[in-house]
Amino acid sequence: MKFLHTSDWHLGRQFHNVSLLDDQKVVLEQIIDFMRSNPIDALVVAGDIYDRSVPPTAAIEVMNHFVNVVCGELHVPVILIPGNHDGAQRLGFGAEQLKQAGLHIIAHFDDMLQPVVIHTEQAGDVAFYGMPYNDPEIVRHYYQQSVSTHDDAHQLLCEKIREQFHPEQKHILISHCFVDGAMESESERPLSIGGSDRVNHQHFVDFDYVALGHLHQPQYKGESYIRYSGSIMKYSFSEQHQKKGMTLVEINQQGFHSATHIDLHAPHQMRILEGELNTLLECGKSDPKADDYLLVRLMDQHAILDPMEKLRAIYPNVLHLEKPGMLIGVEQEMGKARLARGELDMFKDFFLEAQQSDLTPEQEAVVTQVIQTLTRHGEE
Amino acid sequence: MKFLHTSDWHLGRQFHNVSLLDDQKVVLEQIIDFMRSNPIDALVVAGDIYDRSVPPTAAIEVMNHFVNVVCGELHVPVILIPGNHDGAQRLGFGAEQLKQAGLHIIAHFDDMLQPVVIHTEQAGDVAFYGMPYNDPEIVRHYYQQSVSTHDDAHQLLCEKIREQFHPEQKHILISHCFVDGAMESESERPLSIGGSDRVNHQHFVDFDYVALGHLHQPQYKGESYIRYSGSIMKYSFSEQHQKKGMTLVEINQQGFHSATHIDLHAPHQMRILEGELNTLLECGKSDPKADDYLLVRLMDQHAILDPMEKLRAIYPNVLHLEKPGMLIGVEQEMGKARLARGELDMFKDFFLEAQQSDLTPEQEAVVTQVIQTLTRHGEE
Repeated sequence: MKFLHTSDWHLGRQFHNVSLLDDQKVVLEQIIDFMRSNPIDALVVAGDIYDRSVPPTAAIEVMNHFVNVVCGELHVPVILIPGNHDGAQRLGFGAEQLKQAGLHIIAHFDDMLQPVVIHTEQAGDVAFYGMPYNDPEIVRHYYQQSVSTHDDAHQLLCEKIREQFHPEQKHILISHCFVDGAMESESERPLSIGGSDRVNHQHFVDFDYVALGHLHQPQYKGESYIRYSGSIMKYSFSEQHQKKGMTLVEINQQGFHSATHIDLHAPHQMRILEGELNTLLECGKSDPKADDYLLVRLMDQHAILDPMEKLRAIYPNVLHLEKPGMLIGVEQEMGKARLARGELDMFKDFFLEAQQSDLTPEQEAVVTQVIQTLTRHGEE
Repeated sequence: MKFLHTSDWHLGRQFHNVSLLDDQKVVLEQIIDFMRSNPIDALVVAGDIYDRSVPPTAAIEVMNHFVNVVCGELHVPVILIPGNHDGAQRLGFGAEQLKQAGLHIIAHFDDMLQPVVIHTEQAGDVAFYGMPYNDPEIVRHYYQQSVSTHDDAHQLLCEKIREQFHPEQKHILISHCFVDGAMESESERPLSIGGSDRVNHQHFVDFDYVALGHLHQPQYKGESYIRYSGSIMKYSFSEQHQKKGMTLVEINQQGFHSATHIDLHAPHQMRILEGELNTLLECGKSDPKADDYLLVRLMDQHAILDPMEKLRAIYPNVLHLEKPGMLIGVEQEMGKARLARGELDMFKDFFLEAQQSDLTPEQEAVVTQVIQTLTRHGEE
C-alpha cells in the first residue's frame, strides 16, 4: 500500500509582507494532480497545516477546497495532526463528524489511541496513529505523570500508543517534533526555549514508519523509516537550495518498503542574488524566473540612488535588499577624518546618480562645509 | 413532523467582563434533555451560533460537544446558518464532509439552493432552505443584480429559492434578518446603519414556516408561521422580563400546524434591582437567586462608601451599579454656592461612613476651607 506523507503547509503564511497563499494553492494542486495519476491509499499531514492558530479565512477556504477534492472526489482519506503553529481545538471542530467523510483530524489524546485503520491487499491492516502536537506541560497535566521535556512526553505517548498495537497490523506514527540531531531551517518556530525540545529517535523504532513534521528540510534520522517530508515549499531564503516536496511511502507485508521524495514546485522560488547592481540588472533581462521572490545582496561599494526601484523594474519580487558592499566600505574607513571624507564621497555618488554630473568645485566646498558643521554639531 | 427552531446562541459572549459560557453550556444541556425525552426530526439554529467570527476556543469546544451528542448520539440532524456575528467561511470549514454526519452548515449561496430534505410519515418531504447571512453588497456582487438594501437582497434570494420549490414538498426557510415592525432588544448588533436593514415579511409568505434569527425576543411577525425563536438566554438587563427559550414547530400534510415556545432557564438570570442600599441588602438575605447577574440602581440620595463591596457580600454577581438617587441630588442643587455646599455634604457622608462619627466643628472648618481652595484653584 502507498500513502503520501506531507507536512508544514503553513497555509496563510506571509513572507516579507507578501501572501504566499497563491503559491500554496498551486502546490496543493500539484499534490492533487499527483494523486489523480498515482492512486494512493491515504494522505498524511504531519502538522502545521495553517501558519497560525487563527488562520485567515482565505487560507481556510483553500484548505476546504483541498479537502473537498481529496475526500469528496478522489475518496482518499486524509489524516492530519495539528502542529505547533495550529490551534488544536479550533482545527478539531467537527472531528467526530468529519472522519465519517474521510477527514481524520487527530487533535486530542483520546483520538491518538484510536488509530485510523486502512485495509489494503498489499499490506493488510495499516494503523495510523496521530500524536497531536502538545507542550510537555499539557502531557504532564493530562496523564498526571512526571513529564518535563518533549523527550519525556514522546516516551510516554509512544508507550501509550504501543499498548494499542495489534500484532496483525502495520503501525504508522504521525508526530510533529524535533528529532535530536536532525537539521533545522530558518523558517521553523522553536518548540521551546533552551534545547529541551529535542526528542530521541529511539522512541520510534517499533513503528513501521514515522511520518514527521516540524523541520522544513526533507530528511530521515536514525532509521530510514523515521522521516521528515519537509515543508511543501520554501519559507526562508536560507532554504534556497533545499528540494521541497512530499514523500511517497510504500508499506508491504513485511512493513516499511520504500520512501520516495516527490518534488513540488512553487511558482515563485526563493533565491538570493549577489553581485553589483548593473550586472544583476543585465542578467535579469534574460532570467526566465525574474519574478521569483528574491533577496538581493548588492556588492557595490558606492551609494546608489533608490536601488530597490531599479531592481524591481527587472525583478518585480525583490523582497529584501542587503548592501554588504557598503559595509565593507565603512569597515575599511578608519578614524574620524576618514569617515568625514567618506561622507563627502557618499554625497558625490548620490549627486552623480541624481544629477548625472559631478559636483563643481564650488558645490563641493559648500557640501564639505555643511558636513563639517553637522559633524561638529553632532559632537556638541 | 416536529423540529426545534432556535437562534442567537452567541456562544462565548462576555457580559460586563463575565464569560457567559458556563450558563450557555447549561442551556444547551437543557436543549439536549428536551430532545432526549421529546424525539424530534431536526434542530435548526437561525444564526449567531458564536458571538464573533473568531470565537474563543472554549466556545468552539462547547459547540463541538453539543454537535457530538445531537448528531452522534441522538442522530438528530442539525441545520444551521451563520448570522451577522458569525464568520461564514470559518464556520463553513468541512461543511461538505460534516453534512454526511448530519451537521448541515449552510454558509454559501450554492448550499442555499440545495435544501436539506427530511422525510417523515406525518408530513412527507420537508425541505429546509438556509439563507446564510450576507450584507446586500455581497448579494449584489454574487448575483450581479441591482441590490442595495437587505429587503432587495431578501426579495432576490427568496425568488431564487422559490425556483427550487418542489410541489410535493413542504418548504421551510431559515434566515437571519430584521423583519420590519418586529421588536428589537438592546443586545442585538445592528445589521446596518440607517434603517436599510429592515425586510418585508411578504417575501416569506409562500413558505410553510420561516425560522428567523437576529432579534432576541421570541415573536412572530405578519403571519404566525414567520417567527423569531429569540435568543436562548438573556443578553442584556433590558431583557429581564423576556421569556427565553426555543420554538417547537409542528408541520403536517397541510403545512404549518403549530409553534410552541419551550422555556430555557439560564442558571443566572439578568435582573435589575432598584432601591436603597439597606433595603436591598436586607432583601438579599432571603433572595434564593441572589447570585443572579444584577444591575443595581441605588436610590439613596447620600454618598455611600464602597457600595459595590457591600452589595457583593450579599449579591455576588452585581455587574453594574447606577446611582440615580445621587443624580437627583445633583440636579436639585442650583448655582455655584449650593454645589460647593453639596461637596461638603458629600464629604460629611463619606466621613460618617468611614469613621462612624460626625465631623467636629473644627474638622468641618478645615474641610470647608480645603473645598474653597480647590474650587478657586479649578477656576483659575
